Amino acid sequence: MKLHPPDCIAVIFCAQRTKDDDEAYEAAANVMSNLAAQQSGYLGQDNSRSEDGLGITVSYWESDEAARAWRDHPVHSAIREQGRDKWYESYTLHVARIERSYDWNKSGIGKNSVP
Amino acid sequence: MKLHPPDCIAVIFCAQRTKDDDEAYEAAANVMSNLAAQQSGYLGQDNSRSEDGLGITVSYWESDEAARAWRDHPVHSAIREQGRDKWYESYTLHVARIERSYDWNKSGIGKNSVP
Repeated sequence: MKLHPPDCIAVIFCAQRTKDDDEAYEAAANVMSNLAAQQSGYLGQDNSRSEDGLGITVSYWESDEAARAWRDHPVHSAIREQGRDKWYESYTLHVARIERSYDWNKSGIGKNSVP
Repeated sequence: MKLHPPDCIAVIFCAQRTKDDDEAYEAAANVMSNLAAQQSGYLGQDNSRSEDGLGITVSYWESDEAARAWRDHPVHSAIREQGRDKWYESYTLHVARIERSYDWNKSGIGKNSVP
């Protein structure tokens, strides 16, 4: 959870999990998360998953080219096929360009905004 | 979880909850969710919250003006102050403009992309 600059890309992935195969899914999700972090142009990600299996992952990228390169990464592509086959009921994916950002925290560093 | 058109606005709110006051928080979150849905230009939202209290809400708006009007809504502003006081340790908010979108579902309606 951190502030990303204007003009960078947010990939918003919302997915409803099947009820099956939790262990294999978690293992694959960890591999994907670590592999994404090694890609050129990767800025970070936020992840949340509700008990009902609705998960949101937002990954942040320096450019659309970097986001597309990750989409096309062969390992990512292979895991995505597995996801459709076994782990997901449905998903939406929105690719969006950040225009402005804010953060806040209670511990006193306070509030920032960009730009 | 649905597909939103290019040029609409996604407001990505990632927040770490405090451990306190779950009931009042849930009540306020429901009021906010229902009130947002009544605003002009509202397109929808996706919500997820992990057991560790990390939550992501993405709300979708027809225009930046609609997103800003919701930000400035007096009831939303008042609840946001309560959130900082009681319910959140920290949060980030990214306002982003959607460039392209995809969805997929297992049940056979299949895969769509926009544009």
